[in-house]
Amino acid sequence: MEFKAYNIPIRTGHKYVAVFTPKDALRLDLQPGDRIKLKNPKLKKVYPLTALVDISDDDSVKDGHLGLFSETFKTLMLKKNNKVDVSNLEKPETVEFIKAKLNGDRLDAKQIDAIIKDVVEDDLTDVELTYLVAGSHIHGLSDEETANLTKAIVKNGQTIKFTKGTIVDKHCIGGVPGNRTTMLIVPIIASTGLKMPKTSSRSITSPSGTADTMEILANVTVTADKLKKIAETEGGFVSWGGGVDIAAADDHIIRVRHPLSLDPEGMMLASIMAKKYAVGSKHVLIDIPVGPDVKVSEKMQAEHLKDRFETIGKLLKMEVKVIFTDGTQPIGQGVGPSLEAIDVFKVLNNAADAPQDLKEKALVMSGYLLEMGKKAKPKQGYKMAKEILESGKALAKFNRIVKAQGKSKYELREGKYHFNLLATSSGTVKSINNKLISKIARIAGAPIDKYAGLKVLKKIGDKVKKDEPLLTVYADSKARLSGVKENLVFPYKIS
Amino acid sequence: MEFKAYNIPIRTGHKYVAVFTPKDALRLDLQPGDRIKLKNPKLKKVYPLTALVDISDDDSVKDGHLGLFSETFKTLMLKKNNKVDVSNLEKPETVEFIKAKLNGDRLDAKQIDAIIKDVVEDDLTDVELTYLVAGSHIHGLSDEETANLTKAIVKNGQTIKFTKGTIVDKHCIGGVPGNRTTMLIVPIIASTGLKMPKTSSRSITSPSGTADTMEILANVTVTADKLKKIAETEGGFVSWGGGVDIAAADDHIIRVRHPLSLDPEGMMLASIMAKKYAVGSKHVLIDIPVGPDVKVSEKMQAEHLKDRFETIGKLLKMEVKVIFTDGTQPIGQGVGPSLEAIDVFKVLNNAADAPQDLKEKALVMSGYLLEMGKKAKPKQGYKMAKEILESGKALAKFNRIVKAQGKSKYELREGKYHFNLLATSSGTVKSINNKLISKIARIAGAPIDKYAGLKVLKKIGDKVKKDEPLLTVYADSKARLSGVKENLVFPYKIS
Repeated sequence: MEFKAYNIPIRTGHKYVAVFTPKDALRLDLQPGDRIKLKNPKLKKVYPLTALVDISDDDSVKDGHLGLFSETFKTLMLKKNNKVDVSNLEKPETVEFIKAKLNGDRLDAKQIDAIIKDVVEDDLTDVELTYLVAGSHIHGLSDEETANLTKAIVKNGQTIKFTKGTIVDKHCIGGVPGNRTTMLIVPIIASTGLKMPKTSSRSITSPSGTADTMEILANVTVTADKLKKIAETEGGFVSWGGGVDIAAADDHIIRVRHPLSLDPEGMMLASIMAKKYAVGSKHVLIDIPVGPDVKVSEKMQAEHLKDRFETIGKLLKMEVKVIFTDGTQPIGQGVGPSLEAIDVFKVLNNAADAPQDLKEKALVMSGYLLEMGKKAKPKQGYKMAKEILESGKALAKFNRIVKAQGKSKYELREGKYHFNLLATSSGTVKSINNKLISKIARIAGAPIDKYAGLKVLKKIGDKVKKDEPLLTVYADSKARLSGVKENLVFPYKIS
Repeated sequence: MEFKAYNIPIRTGHKYVAVFTPKDALRLDLQPGDRIKLKNPKLKKVYPLTALVDISDDDSVKDGHLGLFSETFKTLMLKKNNKVDVSNLEKPETVEFIKAKLNGDRLDAKQIDAIIKDVVEDDLTDVELTYLVAGSHIHGLSDEETANLTKAIVKNGQTIKFTKGTIVDKHCIGGVPGNRTTMLIVPIIASTGLKMPKTSSRSITSPSGTADTMEILANVTVTADKLKKIAETEGGFVSWGGGVDIAAADDHIIRVRHPLSLDPEGMMLASIMAKKYAVGSKHVLIDIPVGPDVKVSEKMQAEHLKDRFETIGKLLKMEVKVIFTDGTQPIGQGVGPSLEAIDVFKVLNNAADAPQDLKEKALVMSGYLLEMGKKAKPKQGYKMAKEILESGKALAKFNRIVKAQGKSKYELREGKYHFNLLATSSGTVKSINNKLISKIARIAGAPIDKYAGLKVLKKIGDKVKKDEPLLTVYADSKARLSGVKENLVFPYKIS
């Protein structure tokens, strides 16, 4: 059925909305909240949008005219009074697969692929998606389901294909503040002829994601075409995953995981592996920090994840190596986008005051990747990585990557205002609570205030005197700093 | 924070929506899809509405002005440029309870009450509610949880309190077409001084609900105040439950159960018992039809439900009697609102062609209720019910109830067009598929076309000759009748 489109200047964030007159809604037997398919008949190649139905109370709108909210109007590339096709939407078949999963069944490759296709094409409602997450959370996803989910995410998203070269990648199971190894590993690896096309995330609940920190130094919203070229020329990049549609299904699913902070293990594994699979990585290094206040707090849990990563890797024909690292305290000094970028910059420049723990971790991980990619002989990777970093080759490569990605609009500096958190007693630092460290940086304004965050001055084992600074909190807003002082929970144990 | 309100003439069905300018949204750190609280500062007694955030693309709207969709604007009783208070909404505490339920924990009375309060006040999103349904579906609700859910639904909805009299009620676990005993039982019971304030549902997936059929004869959208008066004067009524806010929480939850057709047992039990508890019923008769094509197809399942009803009844201090009835074929002749009302009318009038199975079932059930309510001695209930019905007392009572509820706007007639479904062979009727019978009536247009549906002419055990009519299908639309012919699956087995 054809309607004349007009734009209603309202944005909803992620939903497409079409507003019918009461008579038209009655004629089509549509209720508010129903779903319909919309198509611009002039665009032959674009698949139809699924939109939610609202009903107009505005008498001035004539029957036969269909109001479309901004995103809907724009996505369909319509102009006022252009024709738009409306068709009724049947409930997708995949709803039955979701129900089966909720009831504890295992899904096969075809069913999973069909679900993810519907997810990406927005044919499933949030309620239906929620049941998928609930079923995956309670019953788990088997290794086969997880591998099939990985393939489905990749198949229904954007991929970057390289014809030449060995592609390696890394991933860190998060929770350690300041852990910005990626920005060091990529230039080291890319200097050797291996390819490391790295898409990273922005922060959701942490003070900074790799993409937030990289953004201080370079543009991170780069198209897939351009990223491909950069990887071909420079061997690697550090870009924001959300800037390309790799693992597009993830963004849809995360929306309904968020309210209960659910992170079904199989979905997490598939989401990580999909990003590697989509760029053709054959060798993947997984870093699992273990510590009391990070995502993985028990060695047993780490061992379990290691097994699953390796099994799923085999099913996907990828070499996956999993290492356990120290997750008991922050890495480097800075926490927050610009403060972390300062650390990275110091390590790349071999500055005298560069944080050695960050450098060391990046070299160890680079070493493994060089060995996995057959650029270094067994046990020679670390040495090779060190040589590349200390000779300035990594810095030169990093600068070329930055230039290729484009200039950043940010400065490399600390927040304008700061205060020191002082030791309440003399003694030795026994522990630092990572979650409290992250919270302080968040309250200071990170990652939205790029210059907010903190510098960790004392680490575990350091001797401190009463009233000696333990960390410095930075922000561009005085009010934010006051907020930190008012809400501060002391993150150090000293005895 | 105060805004100036203006109306955006769009209806969404069930969601409240507030549209901010981009600058205002930035200032309040709001994203599309976030939730806020809205309050009309002039209305002191009304609790705040929870609304979803959209963002305007309309440059002509000034900052400080807040667009509200029709339902939101009206519910807050605002006029253009009235002040409206906006406050940020923290995630409700009950989200943690929902997560616990999803993870298999049992919830206590306080937690359940808090959840239902948030449900009714619209403080939980559809996604959060969906997790509640998923958790209840997979892990089940214990008897204690179900009794507590019943109490919570009643506490957070409308109740009708009677100071005098014994209140009885009945409920049928559905699936049997034409099963309109309620409209006979209520006038029989109400003739004896017992009270039977009956709220019934409209059809969701069947050809007619009791409320749809009653609507042929009387108005069924009656306020709680008026219903109370009718029950005080006449002893009973048959009204639509959705017309009053008894079990208001149900309507919210059903929205997210619908997409996967989930009906978690504990939620179903609580929903049934809440409607009895809310009007103070002390004696409840539950009818469980058992047959291959109704909700309960196995005797074991019926026994299980019987146990649960009785246990939950005890926890709620109600006498609950459960009977198993024949669910193998339709009851009465008519299927569809008006066609069923014709059957009821014939039984009340003691017409010669009144369907005896409908009459018999209504008398048996009335008999039990009269005994439970101590109006009849043990085993004397059936006889008493029969006397009331056959003497015309029930008809007189029914007419008074109809008068009190108000006149119907419908006629009591069959659909304008009809056709007969003929026997394909001679023999004896072995079975009738209830689901296919319902489907035929639905395709004919029931319950939206009040006069559509069918009359069952032959029942199990009847001898038929080839080409003899088995049933007559009615509709007010010729096109609908053609639709039935095209899609018909033969519901009879004859041999």
